Amino acid sequence: MKLSYQMLNMNTKIPKGFLFSTAEAAIKKPGRKDLALICSERECVMSGMFTTNAVKAAPVKLDMKRVKTGKGQAIIINSGNANACSGEQGMRDAREMAAITASSLKLKESRVYVCSTGVIGTPMPMERIRPKIGELARNLGKATIDDAAAAIMTTDTFPKIVSRRIKLGGKTVMISGVCKGAGMICPAMATMLCFIMTDARIDKSALDTALKGAVRKSFNRITIDGDMSTNDTVLVMANGMAGNELIEKKSPAFNAFASALAAVSYALSKLIVQDGEGATKFVEVEIKNARNDADAEKGAFAIANSMLVKTALYGNDANWGRLMAALGCSGMAIKEGKIDIALNGVKTASKGMSTGRDKEANEKLRSKEIKISIDLHLGEGSAKVLTCDLTGDYVKINAGYRT
Amino acid sequence: MKLSYQMLNMNTKIPKGFLFSTAEAAIKKPGRKDLALICSERECVMSGMFTTNAVKAAPVKLDMKRVKTGKGQAIIINSGNANACSGEQGMRDAREMAAITASSLKLKESRVYVCSTGVIGTPMPMERIRPKIGELARNLGKATIDDAAAAIMTTDTFPKIVSRRIKLGGKTVMISGVCKGAGMICPAMATMLCFIMTDARIDKSALDTALKGAVRKSFNRITIDGDMSTNDTVLVMANGMAGNELIEKKSPAFNAFASALAAVSYALSKLIVQDGEGATKFVEVEIKNARNDADAEKGAFAIANSMLVKTALYGNDANWGRLMAALGCSGMAIKEGKIDIALNGVKTASKGMSTGRDKEANEKLRSKEIKISIDLHLGEGSAKVLTCDLTGDYVKINAGYRT
Repeated sequence: MKLSYQMLNMNTKIPKGFLFSTAEAAIKKPGRKDLALICSERECVMSGMFTTNAVKAAPVKLDMKRVKTGKGQAIIINSGNANACSGEQGMRDAREMAAITASSLKLKESRVYVCSTGVIGTPMPMERIRPKIGELARNLGKATIDDAAAAIMTTDTFPKIVSRRIKLGGKTVMISGVCKGAGMICPAMATMLCFIMTDARIDKSALDTALKGAVRKSFNRITIDGDMSTNDTVLVMANGMAGNELIEKKSPAFNAFASALAAVSYALSKLIVQDGEGATKFVEVEIKNARNDADAEKGAFAIANSMLVKTALYGNDANWGRLMAALGCSGMAIKEGKIDIALNGVKTASKGMSTGRDKEANEKLRSKEIKISIDLHLGEGSAKVLTCDLTGDYVKINAGYRT
Repeated sequence: MKLSYQMLNMNTKIPKGFLFSTAEAAIKKPGRKDLALICSERECVMSGMFTTNAVKAAPVKLDMKRVKTGKGQAIIINSGNANACSGEQGMRDAREMAAITASSLKLKESRVYVCSTGVIGTPMPMERIRPKIGELARNLGKATIDDAAAAIMTTDTFPKIVSRRIKLGGKTVMISGVCKGAGMICPAMATMLCFIMTDARIDKSALDTALKGAVRKSFNRITIDGDMSTNDTVLVMANGMAGNELIEKKSPAFNAFASALAAVSYALSKLIVQDGEGATKFVEVEIKNARNDADAEKGAFAIANSMLVKTALYGNDANWGRLMAALGCSGMAIKEGKIDIALNGVKTASKGMSTGRDKEANEKLRSKEIKISIDLHLGEGSAKVLTCDLTGDYVKINAGYRT
């Protein structure tokens, strides 16, 4: 199921005015890049969304403050160490990373954002990071967006890049995003870092609104293992270099921009699920006709996070009884005798009972893409959640992550 | 970690007047007993607690009604098929099992309880069960409590039996329980069937109260995989044959009885966790000084159900950062800078930060018994939850359960 480099848009054009560089600071294993710098030629309008975990990494706290200014120009990212549960020293380290980057790039310090991903609770190896930042700044433009996407990976098996081009009033606007995911992926933002760049001219409030809408139906609708990270961050940089008329919330162009941003976010979130740790299958859980949307979301997440459901899918077992059990304890309203379930198009349960078609469904589950469709026949609420199966490899990866 | 038969009290005396028999009805694989009958010589005071899953198996619905009478004398149990998501036919099958049992034993039908455990959503093979019930009744007394405990197993690897003896006013009262667990084990009752027998004389209201207290701190405080079953049932039968003075809620003997019942329940719930599917480690999560008990329970379950925590424990990895992340998204109140964490006695985090003792803790985690102690320094709430690690074998067992 892992996508190859070739299947991604490695040669996609990127928004005007964004430059990249990467370096190796020996935070991850030797031979792997673990620092990336994304920088815009011009100051950007910035928007961001962050983990709702009460335990937030130092760089998250820093960025949450900075993004309130709505302005930014560069993001420095390290993989291998999350700089979480690191106390005051962690805050000092995050600020120092920003400060050195700013002085190397001759930017105001407040225009530089910091993101970290990796192991929680280990002090940042600043002695190795510090001397590499100048190199990053000097090499700006020598790396591609692909290199940057690779440098932010941890247990990811492929870099994740998505681009969209739209025409706004005769001007071409590009939106490109890179992200990393893999484990600790769960509702309400994940060990996920996502950087979206656009050359659109847009104001802060419109960008915030577009991002919020995009995240709600993409990054907040995926789950690998139900664990929520301390570091989840989505940052959007809009540098205005496309020369389009300024997009405000009331602009005719707003919807087109927001849709494109949502499409990029959705495609990126799908890549994260496809690269779920140890996953062999991509799973879409769709619940229809729930009492309301919130209920549908609850039920879809209950199924997507059920270890028993995920292992059954891994085993090509159309064990819809486990779906029923998960729905029943999700807290959503259900009527057992009204529930229809289809697995890759094969109706295995009708009115809450077996249709006798499990064997046929088992065959269909051999596919790498699974669609679970549940109709509750109760109301008009619906939700879609993306997830993956649970395999022995997930256990192997996470039992040995730090060793 | 699996306990051997020898480690259990296989020769424990059981309460007076309880008889057992078992049979093979080819519901499970050939050569395995899958029917058990527990019967008291005298009518019993009955109490029961059941799954809170909105999807309830047919026998659960039947027993929930019958237990309101407070009376019962026999329980017929099958393993291999849960009789859940089975509609009206499932209800007819459960009632028929009770009816045949009652007529074979010459009991009122309403005094017979039915329990099922196994695959959800497959019709009950009544053609194979029906003819075996007479045999069960005829053979009553030929099987031991050990045989009964073995016949109710599904993926369990050992039978689970616990007994306690107490003296009440000069009379010896015995409490013996058998249960089965293994997977789909989660808060608020699990794929767990538990049958507790006692020869105590006790009234319905006192028995209900004692059971509720016992379950709250035992079966409702364990989790294997966070999945809640459709069939969870605890039934207690008290036949009064010990000849003790009737226990009422106000009796001086009530506390002694309730404590003994709680001890039996706790020991049984511990056995369920020790036999968690694929588990190699028994894990106790204790949270102290939370804002309140409910908060502490939330946090302890968030940790106990975190796949990342469970895989780290399997890998002997003192990855306390994952505990912090799980606490942070549990919904409980925390102050990151106040959290202390100890793993098998080694303090790995102090005030939310590393103490640098991870390697020492890794060594301690090689033990088969893990104690996670978390002090939040916020209030006076506490909770203890039992769980196990997550292994490749859990995935193997559940990916191939029906094949």
